[in-house]
Amino acid sequence: IQKDILQNQSHKRFNILTGEWILVSPHRTKRPWQGQQEKQAGDKRPSYDESCYLCPGNERASGDSNPQYTDTYAFTNDFAALQSKSDPFIINDGLLRAESELGTCRVICFSPDHSKSLAHMDTSGIENVVNLWQEEFRQLGSREDIRYVQIFENKGAVMGCSNPHPHGQIWAQSSIPNEVIKKDKRQKDYYENNQKSLLSDYIHQELSNKERLVYENGHFVVLIPFWAVWPFETMIIPKRQQAHIGQLSAEEKTGFADAIRFITATYDKLFDCSFPYSSGIHQAPTDGKDYDHWHWHMSFYPPLLRSATVKKFMVGYEMFAMPQRDITAESAAQRLRELA
Amino acid sequence: IQKDILQNQSHKRFNILTGEWILVSPHRTKRPWQGQQEKQAGDKRPSYDESCYLCPGNERASGDSNPQYTDTYAFTNDFAALQSKSDPFIINDGLLRAESELGTCRVICFSPDHSKSLAHMDTSGIENVVNLWQEEFRQLGSREDIRYVQIFENKGAVMGCSNPHPHGQIWAQSSIPNEVIKKDKRQKDYYENNQKSLLSDYIHQELSNKERLVYENGHFVVLIPFWAVWPFETMIIPKRQQAHIGQLSAEEKTGFADAIRFITATYDKLFDCSFPYSSGIHQAPTDGKDYDHWHWHMSFYPPLLRSATVKKFMVGYEMFAMPQRDITAESAAQRLRELA
Ligand SMILES: O=P(O)(O)O[C@H]1O[C@H](CO)[C@@H](O)[C@H](O)[C@H]1O
Ligand SMILES: O=P(O)(O)O[C@H]1O[C@H](CO)[C@@H](O)[C@H](O)[C@H]1O
Repeated sequence: IQKDILQNQSHKRFNILTGEWILVSPHRTKRPWQGQQEKQAGDKRPSYDESCYLCPGNERASGDSNPQYTDTYAFTNDFAALQSKSDPFIINDGLLRAESELGTCRVICFSPDHSKSLAHMDTSGIENVVNLWQEEFRQLGSREDIRYVQIFENKGAVMGCSNPHPHGQIWAQSSIPNEVIKKDKRQKDYYENNQKSLLSDYIHQELSNKERLVYENGHFVVLIPFWAVWPFETMIIPKRQQAHIGQLSAEEKTGFADAIRFITATYDKLFDCSFPYSSGIHQAPTDGKDYDHWHWHMSFYPPLLRSATVKKFMVGYEMFAMPQRDITAESAAQRLRELA
Repeated sequence: IQKDILQNQSHKRFNILTGEWILVSPHRTKRPWQGQQEKQAGDKRPSYDESCYLCPGNERASGDSNPQYTDTYAFTNDFAALQSKSDPFIINDGLLRAESELGTCRVICFSPDHSKSLAHMDTSGIENVVNLWQEEFRQLGSREDIRYVQIFENKGAVMGCSNPHPHGQIWAQSSIPNEVIKKDKRQKDYYENNQKSLLSDYIHQELSNKERLVYENGHFVVLIPFWAVWPFETMIIPKRQQAHIGQLSAEEKTGFADAIRFITATYDKLFDCSFPYSSGIHQAPTDGKDYDHWHWHMSFYPPLLRSATVKKFMVGYEMFAMPQRDITAESAAQRLRELA
């Protein structure tokens, strides 16, 4: 009976990691769409593009040239949003409060091959990316001025990505960002009350029910969280509790790469296109405090709703009130499972 | 010296209404843009479009016909995200929490003229819209099952608007949404500690400094808040503290309409286009509790950054960490002032 209600009536669901609610309107998919259509990503790309500033050997805006890299390559963004050279400052002027935010922005090339995306790479190629993330996380995280390391990817023009060469980014900064603070608080409370991580218990519940499960291997679970906001939002969660990706064992690294390969390739099949998304890893801050309560995870936020050209807009109501979705997590998970 | 720092170095600013920080990277506008270009809104529209389901006299998806309305018109959305017919329920199943969300979605036509937008209407035409908002707020807010009334507009295809006929929406629901809860808490704390509303003191400070002021009339202030997220985000704030729009005097209504006219017309001049945005009014909940601490306000969140076709993307970093902006509130305010 409960399952039925959730597939038919407007309701809200609780995000156990952030403490926020989202509105679900399962009946709303019947609405016709006469609004904006996204452009589809163009034809096949060449393996090397001489005008691409991420391809091996090419020159960048800074005047530096990329090396002839053969698997992955990382460098500091030539237009970094975070700077590390300035002095720290704090401004408190009546009701105006500002503080310096120091840090750095790194660009992470996933492959020398301009034509690829994670969805086309094999597990060992993706393992190279995981290795690079680990290395960057360790190096950046050990810096005195860095308290949080945000690993993410914007894929597709519709997600603000301006270069189709397969790449992600890392922004590392001196304070702990909003979204991480929310997840830190709730994981901490749960751990103190239950001596287990919140996500350990959550994946236990999802694995016994399987309604929202999309994929599983020996070390990782891929699922649509009960509180998903984006139409086909997924999470990759390690089965063993770990605070950050620095703690991955060699075997777990392969499992993580396999999970990424699975979900990105499945996404591409959904609407038969190079599926756009923003993905990111949420993990423990690197300020040296105790984060035993953290259970790191990777999330994918893909905007497409109905087809390769019709996305979900998070606009007026969503900006001013709360996120809203039109299909349920359960029906989205079923569609992804059927494609696999 | 402080002013200089804020125009040149990466820093974070504090939103006094939500308690959240945003990252400001003033140096980042130099970045070249090779990414997605938005389509520009088409040529002039006719005053009446026979295929538009919002024009007077036309038939809608439900089979109902619009009356021959002459100034404004409101009806219940034929594909409402919130339903009011079902029974309330609560689900608590291990770590899964869901609750019914009852309510209604209204469509608010601003004018019978298909070719117009708020930017083209005169003050008395906009006053009719304000009157309708008041009436809807009173009616919906007095319902037992409605605790919050969200008035908003999505303008432009890039903001998910599927019909260019000038219109906004109202979603009224049985619980108080996330964004409103945040603003309620901080306004309440401030009011208890200072016996004045947070925004009274804030506009007092902004009016003495004027760096972020965009426009002012006898009853309203239009400014770019110190903590603005969107490139040309603005707030319209009544000078007299009031918890909700039901408390507007006749004179204040004219002042509010004048402020809306001013900012929407100025936006259109900025990039010489019909300027897209989502706007919304945040005001006191309607659950009958004491909200004397509230100071209602209207915000505009416009996505365009550099031109009519290049917008700011709130994607990877912004979704996973915190909002980030490339131009400062001060330089954006100056540009808007210069256009006026
Ligand atoms: O209600 P509309 O105009 O059909 O839809 C638009 O506004 C809604 C409320 O912000 C959003 O949920 C939709 O994604 C958007 O396309
Ligand atoms: O860094 P890029 O790829 O130039 O820029 C992209 O990602 C950034 C981080 O999410 C965003 O701030 C930009 O709006 C987006 O266009």
